[in-house]
Amino acid sequence: MRIHLINPNTSRAMTDKIAVTAREVAGPDVDVVATCPEPGAGPAAVESHTDEAWAALVVAQQVAAAEAAGVGPADGGEPDGVGPADGYVVACFGDPGLDAARELTDGPVVGIAEAAMHVATLSGRTFAVVTTLSRTLGRARDLVRRYGFEDTCVAMYAADVPVLELEDAGSAAREKIAELCERAVRDDGADTVVLGCAGMTDLCADLTKRTGVPVIDGVAAAVGLVSGMVRMGVGTSKRDEYAPPPRLPAQVLRP
Amino acid sequence: MRIHLINPNTSRAMTDKIAVTAREVAGPDVDVVATCPEPGAGPAAVESHTDEAWAALVVAQQVAAAEAAGVGPADGGEPDGVGPADGYVVACFGDPGLDAARELTDGPVVGIAEAAMHVATLSGRTFAVVTTLSRTLGRARDLVRRYGFEDTCVAMYAADVPVLELEDAGSAAREKIAELCERAVRDDGADTVVLGCAGMTDLCADLTKRTGVPVIDGVAAAVGLVSGMVRMGVGTSKRDEYAPPPRLPAQVLRP
Amino acid sequence: MRIHLINPNTSRAMTDKIAVTAREVAGPDVDVVATCPEPGAGPAAVESHTDEAWAALVVAQQVAAAEAAGVGPADGGEPDGVGPADGYVVACFGDPGLDAARELTDGPVVGIAEAAMHVATLSGRTFAVVTTLSRTLGRARDLVRRYGFEDTCVAMYAADVPVLELEDAGSAAREKIAELCERAVRDDGADTVVLGCAGMTDLCADLTKRTGVPVIDGVAAAVGLVSGMVRMGVGTSKRDEYAPPPRLPAQVLRP
Amino acid sequence: MRIHLINPNTSRAMTDKIAVTAREVAGPDVDVVATCPEPGAGPAAVESHTDEAWAALVVAQQVAAAEAAGVGPADGGEPDGVGPADGYVVACFGDPGLDAARELTDGPVVGIAEAAMHVATLSGRTFAVVTTLSRTLGRARDLVRRYGFEDTCVAMYAADVPVLELEDAGSAAREKIAELCERAVRDDGADTVVLGCAGMTDLCADLTKRTGVPVIDGVAAAVGLVSGMVRMGVGTSKRDEYAPPPRLPAQVLRP
Amino acid sequence: MRIHLINPNTSRAMTDKIAVTAREVAGPDVDVVATCPEPGAGPAAVESHTDEAWAALVVAQQVAAAEAAGVGPADGGEPDGVGPADGYVVACFGDPGLDAARELTDGPVVGIAEAAMHVATLSGRTFAVVTTLSRTLGRARDLVRRYGFEDTCVAMYAADVPVLELEDAGSAAREKIAELCERAVRDDGADTVVLGCAGMTDLCADLTKRTGVPVIDGVAAAVGLVSGMVRMGVGTSKRDEYAPPPRLPAQVLRP
Amino acid sequence: MRIHLINPNTSRAMTDKIAVTAREVAGPDVDVVATCPEPGAGPAAVESHTDEAWAALVVAQQVAAAEAAGVGPADGGEPDGVGPADGYVVACFGDPGLDAARELTDGPVVGIAEAAMHVATLSGRTFAVVTTLSRTLGRARDLVRRYGFEDTCVAMYAADVPVLELEDAGSAAREKIAELCERAVRDDGADTVVLGCAGMTDLCADLTKRTGVPVIDGVAAAVGLVSGMVRMGVGTSKRDEYAPPPRLPAQVLRP
Repeated sequence: MRIHLINPNTSRAMTDKIAVTAREVAGPDVDVVATCPEPGAGPAAVESHTDEAWAALVVAQQVAAAEAAGVGPADGGEPDGVGPADGYVVACFGDPGLDAARELTDGPVVGIAEAAMHVATLSGRTFAVVTTLSRTLGRARDLVRRYGFEDTCVAMYAADVPVLELEDAGSAAREKIAELCERAVRDDGADTVVLGCAGMTDLCADLTKRTGVPVIDGVAAAVGLVSGMVRMGVGTSKRDEYAPPPRLPAQVLRP
Repeated sequence: MRIHLINPNTSRAMTDKIAVTAREVAGPDVDVVATCPEPGAGPAAVESHTDEAWAALVVAQQVAAAEAAGVGPADGGEPDGVGPADGYVVACFGDPGLDAARELTDGPVVGIAEAAMHVATLSGRTFAVVTTLSRTLGRARDLVRRYGFEDTCVAMYAADVPVLELEDAGSAAREKIAELCERAVRDDGADTVVLGCAGMTDLCADLTKRTGVPVIDGVAAAVGLVSGMVRMGVGTSKRDEYAPPPRLPAQVLRP
Repeated sequence: MRIHLINPNTSRAMTDKIAVTAREVAGPDVDVVATCPEPGAGPAAVESHTDEAWAALVVAQQVAAAEAAGVGPADGGEPDGVGPADGYVVACFGDPGLDAARELTDGPVVGIAEAAMHVATLSGRTFAVVTTLSRTLGRARDLVRRYGFEDTCVAMYAADVPVLELEDAGSAAREKIAELCERAVRDDGADTVVLGCAGMTDLCADLTKRTGVPVIDGVAAAVGLVSGMVRMGVGTSKRDEYAPPPRLPAQVLRP
Repeated sequence: MRIHLINPNTSRAMTDKIAVTAREVAGPDVDVVATCPEPGAGPAAVESHTDEAWAALVVAQQVAAAEAAGVGPADGGEPDGVGPADGYVVACFGDPGLDAARELTDGPVVGIAEAAMHVATLSGRTFAVVTTLSRTLGRARDLVRRYGFEDTCVAMYAADVPVLELEDAGSAAREKIAELCERAVRDDGADTVVLGCAGMTDLCADLTKRTGVPVIDGVAAAVGLVSGMVRMGVGTSKRDEYAPPPRLPAQVLRP
Repeated sequence: MRIHLINPNTSRAMTDKIAVTAREVAGPDVDVVATCPEPGAGPAAVESHTDEAWAALVVAQQVAAAEAAGVGPADGGEPDGVGPADGYVVACFGDPGLDAARELTDGPVVGIAEAAMHVATLSGRTFAVVTTLSRTLGRARDLVRRYGFEDTCVAMYAADVPVLELEDAGSAAREKIAELCERAVRDDGADTVVLGCAGMTDLCADLTKRTGVPVIDGVAAAVGLVSGMVRMGVGTSKRDEYAPPPRLPAQVLRP
Repeated sequence: MRIHLINPNTSRAMTDKIAVTAREVAGPDVDVVATCPEPGAGPAAVESHTDEAWAALVVAQQVAAAEAAGVGPADGGEPDGVGPADGYVVACFGDPGLDAARELTDGPVVGIAEAAMHVATLSGRTFAVVTTLSRTLGRARDLVRRYGFEDTCVAMYAADVPVLELEDAGSAAREKIAELCERAVRDDGADTVVLGCAGMTDLCADLTKRTGVPVIDGVAAAVGLVSGMVRMGVGTSKRDEYAPPPRLPAQVLRP
């Protein structure tokens, strides 16, 4: 089974980190591929709605490219790219391009915000979201509503630290994230905490220990959900809304 | 006062039609500008989530370009483009790129789905949406929820006709739209009908006569809302979420 | 185009102030009329549900009277009253009598609470309401729900100052209102603030400057919405609920 | 214990019928009083929002009058009216004036729509409303939402018969009501049916037998709720919203 | 009329206290019976979901036993148990077994959480719940949603005192409850307070005096609702969901 | 990794069938255990709220027993029972005892209704539930709301066939289920169908082929979710609500 993680920003370091997490939680029979756009072919980080508009297009481009590759390493041929996967993960907390990606493949596609929130509601009654920039909270709130979790999400905090600063292990950014997680548990009664950025994937274990409640990383959660769906044979429903689009613009097929 | 309508698809004919409607309903003191991307620089029509991902980026590009132009015809100088407007209308029923556009200007920005639904709730208790393709109903439903109108929207119908066929005055597509409007009034008790495509803007008067209830076109509605906001001095709140983005990718500034 | 603003309380000073605001934001082609009941023929101020019950009847009476006048100044005849308008504004924040008024005219009718909330959701993600008396917050909450804005309204504050004290420019009441607006922005993350009383119409510009976010006055908002609807030819849907009532009691026709 | 039922329309026959029902279900220790306005001092029937605006004022007037009477028959003195009651019932399905009435007395006040819906949710999972005129369904829907029963109310039907025709025992109106009750049970899965008009109070037993499910009359339900509240010493909370109004206009005190 | 209160825990003292309250508020024509399981045949107190699972079964057993008794004291025969009642009250704040109980009798069945919340919404705009253990708040929140009162319930507090300690009149537990009631009124604007435990039934009058708002006990409220329903002839709708179960396990019939 | 499926009814055949499905979809490193109560120690089938009250207790008993066993086959010792598992599945569509089970273990616990609905929302926009008895639809609706999927669940159908008849491969019951799945897709626009009974687990593949959309079995879905959670180290949050209960009654520990 192959799962393809798409990081729509151009940070190769973040993409590698995501792949490490994904491989740790994937079952022994799961092959993980993680890609991101070349520098200049996508946003440096997704920190605004404008970035996100571009990120959505990047996600569509990458799924279309993988599906169009026709043949992949597993077929023994010379692939002209990564090749189709059994399932895809949109590895950016705003879940950009999720609907478009679902049009472009028969397999399951899961966003990391979506995945983390679903798993949170299976682990406790209530969850909080702790993310990077306050300006992205509006999008996070939209997702909470879309996925049906208004009643379960009891708090949303932003550390107001730049996404890429999380890469730095000794940064004050990480301490700030930790304090917000503790606050959500103590003051808002959150049973679990959802981390609102793919770049926080390596903070999970420490934060779980520190807060005493499950701290949930969307990358790990999404890999679990997608691989479970592949195993049970459930992909994306191709009825109507997510059927292949009437036309694929060149912009998407060959960006 | 200048209002700038952005049609994110490449149909020049549809863009012209939209401009006609806008000018008819704008007050005598309002200058209307309507633009669309060059062929190949945007989707031919917005008929899928994949198209919409691209359309959102196009909207951001056009607002950024207008705002960056620095000087416009009204200043008497040699503009390097349209120049900044007092307010913007996203003239595509999925309201693509609405959030991004709000980041990129201080003026008001209103989508035509948003506008039509707001006006519908001021005219009657309940409204129905009649649109082109059933595969776009999921997006329409998302918008209904985001804008707060789940309780007011009593039916959503799709004629399953291609967007561009509406351009043809004698087409069966137009009759089908009319029948769905009648059905919404008769069977679902809709007090008003919202037309779910910018390309239907010229059908409004006939359908209002035929159904006996207000049939609402988003283009006209959006022009009314944006010009009203400009007159009362209310633009986009620049607090946090819609503040200018930390960085504008070249992709958006100069596509 | 004529827009008729109805202040259901008997304060002539407040009515005049409302008319000033309305004229400032109306387009150059809009004629504004503002009326209120004679002393003793309506509540002195609307500060309780009991006042509001009477206010609703007053609104119905004034619309019925205008519509029944048959002929107005614009016709050059001898009017027996103001004469029918193209659209009506209910200029009291509880939107009393809104449904009744819609039964009594073919034109659009918009309440100022309704108008301010609609415009707020076009300007930002979230709004707060700042009003006079805490005992009226229940009614305001009802309106927020009815109009579909529970998810958008993040705070409601009352200064607990009497409505009529706002007339006094140097009053502590005005400072208290300003502080609550600031608090809503700072502590509740309100992107905009809706002023919860027609009598605050002249505070808007100052408060916008002081808070740094759009502070929205319902009178201006309603004039914008109603005039936009008149321009696009959308009145009140006369299907069923808002059709003319089976019978008009003398009490309403000739109070 | 005295319970005062207020019918805001001027039909003395309907008021008498309501009193009969109320007395049948009241406990042996309950004294029932039922009043309505004099002809010309209230709407003939409540069949529009305009009627309802007047009805709300009438309800406030009657509660204020009863409370102001100072002394009642039970005191052995010469009452100048009915005198204060221990609790009040607003006996009109739109629950007009309910909030105002709650300001005007310390005792409990319950509307018959409210009462019937509450009892319905204690009897089964789902209920339907069957009422007289379709133009009143919007108001009924507002009440369903205000009381919290959107998920429980599965259907709303109007027989489109005039309120006063229900007085006629042999009328087709009654048969139409019965058929709608049966339809709600059969097609919509309603566990119970709420009758949407005080004038249907005498149809209850027959309809219960015919449909096989509890058919609930708001008059009986309200008497049960109000008398239960009086017995347990719970009146209207006088904190803030329902505290006595700052001023009672003469219009309400002595209409 | 006989009303049967079922306390699913084994505390005979609490059961007796409940019966006292019930008799005080029941009308003069109501016979009150209160039962609880023998020690070892039910939970000692309901303080966890595990306790509640057992409590639900106990409630079903007791209703089944009463209904099966076939003959009761009122028939003059030798009853083999309490005998069928006209209506039942589930006297435990989690309303355990409510749906099962409704399957097992034709009469009305009301839970005390349900009853208190319904009455609270008739007395004021908003209510708070004050209960014993914070671990039970999740269940209380579920009930608030099920009954439709999310918009009305403005706060939920737990004193984190054990249920049985409330029996002790001089305990600090009682003072803590009182302080939380005051806080809900002062800080959350609760118009009324619902007490979240059958064991608090005797605190009601004192807390009402201390807080100045109605403090509502579910036992009293449920007796009022059930007796009102019996008087008006409305029991449990036996359509489908609450029809007698296809089979009654011996475990329920003869535990 | 060991996953323990609990079927709370006494059908050994159904339990075996569930185990087969679970093993097919579990990863190669997952050990599946499936248990059910002895005849007489649990309901024969869960077809009423009364059955479900008992089923909830059975689930609590089985989790408590497994956890208390102290040592399991994997430890090489002589187990006094199944022994603790890494995660649990409640294999009955009403998800009985789910909250209690979460109190009794540190591992994840997922119900099959919950699991199927979560997976459905990852596969398409909308789902329908097709179940056995119409009297269980109320419970299913409660679960839909609790899990947050009111907007996503577009239809609920019951075939009104007994649970145990599904065991019979040639039965009319199976054809009826298939027809309802087709109807949900065709008439209600369901993107996926959730099967509302653990006993339908073997119908999934056929129904998926027949309807052309993913038909989702809760058993497979729950195994995927629980194993994913175990792999990522997320169990049940033990904060407050799901912390171990203050006391475990003998009834639960050793039924």
